[in-house]
Amino acid sequence: MNWNKLFSESTNGMKESLIRELVALTKGVKGMISFAGGFPAEATLPSKDLSEIFAESIKDFGNDILQYGPSGGDKFLKKEIKKWEGIEDYSDDQILISTGSTNGIYYFTKTFIDKGDVIISEGPSFLGTLVAFEAEGAIVEGIPMDSEGMIMNKLRMKIASLKNEGKKIKFIYTIPEFQNPTGITMSLKRREELIQIAIENEIPILEDNPYEELRLTGTKIPDIYKIARDKFENTDIVTTVKSFSKTLGPGLRLAYAFGPEKVIGEMISWTQKINVSTDCVTQRAVSNFLKKDMFRPHITGIRKFYQPKLNLMLEELEKNMPAEIKWTHPEGGMFVWVYLPEKLNADELFNKAIKNKVAFIPGSKFYPSNQEVYHELRLNFSYPSLTDIKEGVKRLADIIKQELN
Amino acid sequence: MNWNKLFSESTNGMKESLIRELVALTKGVKGMISFAGGFPAEATLPSKDLSEIFAESIKDFGNDILQYGPSGGDKFLKKEIKKWEGIEDYSDDQILISTGSTNGIYYFTKTFIDKGDVIISEGPSFLGTLVAFEAEGAIVEGIPMDSEGMIMNKLRMKIASLKNEGKKIKFIYTIPEFQNPTGITMSLKRREELIQIAIENEIPILEDNPYEELRLTGTKIPDIYKIARDKFENTDIVTTVKSFSKTLGPGLRLAYAFGPEKVIGEMISWTQKINVSTDCVTQRAVSNFLKKDMFRPHITGIRKFYQPKLNLMLEELEKNMPAEIKWTHPEGGMFVWVYLPEKLNADELFNKAIKNKVAFIPGSKFYPSNQEVYHELRLNFSYPSLTDIKEGVKRLADIIKQELN
Repeated sequence: MNWNKLFSESTNGMKESLIRELVALTKGVKGMISFAGGFPAEATLPSKDLSEIFAESIKDFGNDILQYGPSGGDKFLKKEIKKWEGIEDYSDDQILISTGSTNGIYYFTKTFIDKGDVIISEGPSFLGTLVAFEAEGAIVEGIPMDSEGMIMNKLRMKIASLKNEGKKIKFIYTIPEFQNPTGITMSLKRREELIQIAIENEIPILEDNPYEELRLTGTKIPDIYKIARDKFENTDIVTTVKSFSKTLGPGLRLAYAFGPEKVIGEMISWTQKINVSTDCVTQRAVSNFLKKDMFRPHITGIRKFYQPKLNLMLEELEKNMPAEIKWTHPEGGMFVWVYLPEKLNADELFNKAIKNKVAFIPGSKFYPSNQEVYHELRLNFSYPSLTDIKEGVKRLADIIKQELN
Repeated sequence: MNWNKLFSESTNGMKESLIRELVALTKGVKGMISFAGGFPAEATLPSKDLSEIFAESIKDFGNDILQYGPSGGDKFLKKEIKKWEGIEDYSDDQILISTGSTNGIYYFTKTFIDKGDVIISEGPSFLGTLVAFEAEGAIVEGIPMDSEGMIMNKLRMKIASLKNEGKKIKFIYTIPEFQNPTGITMSLKRREELIQIAIENEIPILEDNPYEELRLTGTKIPDIYKIARDKFENTDIVTTVKSFSKTLGPGLRLAYAFGPEKVIGEMISWTQKINVSTDCVTQRAVSNFLKKDMFRPHITGIRKFYQPKLNLMLEELEKNMPAEIKWTHPEGGMFVWVYLPEKLNADELFNKAIKNKVAFIPGSKFYPSNQEVYHELRLNFSYPSLTDIKEGVKRLADIIKQELN
């Protein structure tokens, strides 16, 4: 068969997430210390509690949850999510339970994107999302960040120039807290500016907040949707997606989206065509986990577990890295972002690093197509042990020093 | 916000599955006997066993299955599926675990379809699939059936005329066993002809077989992929999707697809962008259900449960319906299809029927756009009780008799 002749244009042009391949290169290598992955540590996964709760949920509600469920999601889980988020004023039709955040983001993308439409994101941003945007034919425009997040002047200029070119900007995608890959959190002031700009230009915001509960130091800044609602009295401009992946486990593929009913309604129509619904057993089990007030103490435990890892990584970077090297100072999440001098190329450094048994992801992988920056890299601190963080940062610093000489 | 201006063309043009609305009309109405749904009976859902197996699976493998899993699916489940299907010669890369059959079919559609491409299906066919095909911009051409399934002369003529028009035919979609909505099973001869035509024209076949295990009488006819492999020595032309929805419960959203590695590979690339993977907990639990040899006896139980329902529905139709009315004689599945005289309109009959507290789905709902036939209707026998089947068929026959007078 001449498959490529039969395949769709988007299939033939599809980009892969190269991160998987890079991570694969580091797996099973004896002595390898990997800062490459983006996995939660197994010690934070509540296997024992979930084992009991799944058993109980199926025993008590099997006839209901083994049956077809509503495409928008289980009403019991929606009730618990409303309580958790403090959005009891939202109707059930403003909430969609999705098969992970990526799934909710995909439905949002399908709702808005025709080939050639523009999505504005932070540059760099989460690769999984970028490849999905591009697979749907979107042009992604990355806006640079500083320590307060997306730079608003640059956003304004980009919007103006895109409009000038006659481009259709369909939405702004942001990961405001402990962003993947940089670990940067958007400041309150920037969040307000972002909302202002979005309202002025009638461009919806997609707020992706998977790391929110992994705040390890500092003070929570209100979610963008909350600022829009409370300060701008606008409940149309923001759609938010949040996930249970970083708290209960990514294997559950469970997340939720909430926003204007009109948008959520179309996302549910896409759900009917793509998944019918999210796994109803998992939905009810997690609903019961929340109902029994097990989620709050579980998160406290996760924070206690990750906090020393973040602290140690920042300390060891300080101790070991040469003066030319800078990095972000995240207050949570899973990642630290390192800025190398421009003469160093992190893609090349990767090959040297894995020979020396330490791995990271080169920063270029996180940029939209044709906007790559090559002197940055991402370090994960959630998965490696404390001993490995100490030794791994030292190894990496040694390699960088060699390169600089 | 001017949402429709922002929404994508496909979102603005999207058709809903009207069946949900029709089913909703019949729900909670006192005394209503519904043949409208397509749900498995709750008595067939193995709640007790699954409760234990989920608990055990999470307890024993929590650290593995709560973590991210491969996009293509759990290797333990793939192993069990290979054994079950008798495809031990397939590599893991030829199998994809999907979030229900609809999900696998969607990935297949994304793999092949550009806007304006043609998909050939049976007419009528499963509405959930038809609306997904059309949402992706495909033109669906329905081929009429007789008691042996899709009529092959009509298929040949349709392919010839589409080719004449310069249309790109991307695949042939078929539900060969106990088809939804008609209950018709494609004969062995037709399956062979279908493969022959597909090979000659280089058009892939998508074989959707969710009802296979619900064979209640008669003898199993080999799957289309098996005939292609064994008789035509062709392992490229057929991709097959099968589901656990009708046996373990649709709430689990679990199904699998297998076929040529090149096609499955692209479907996995779409999985990465749309769901990342299917729920890993559910995958391992079902894998253990299969491993413990609990699936075969469970299916035997389901068959014993449904068989009297099918028999009774056919008997009662025979007893009660006027001579002008014909219907299919399924050997399994969930549905019987009724042919009314052309002067009757099943859409109009529906309204009269629900007033008389009996419901069905008008046949027109199952046709591709602009190909509707109005004098047919679908009856479900899996969900209603034996008492309700007896009484419901009588009510329906009475209404039809009135209409004929």
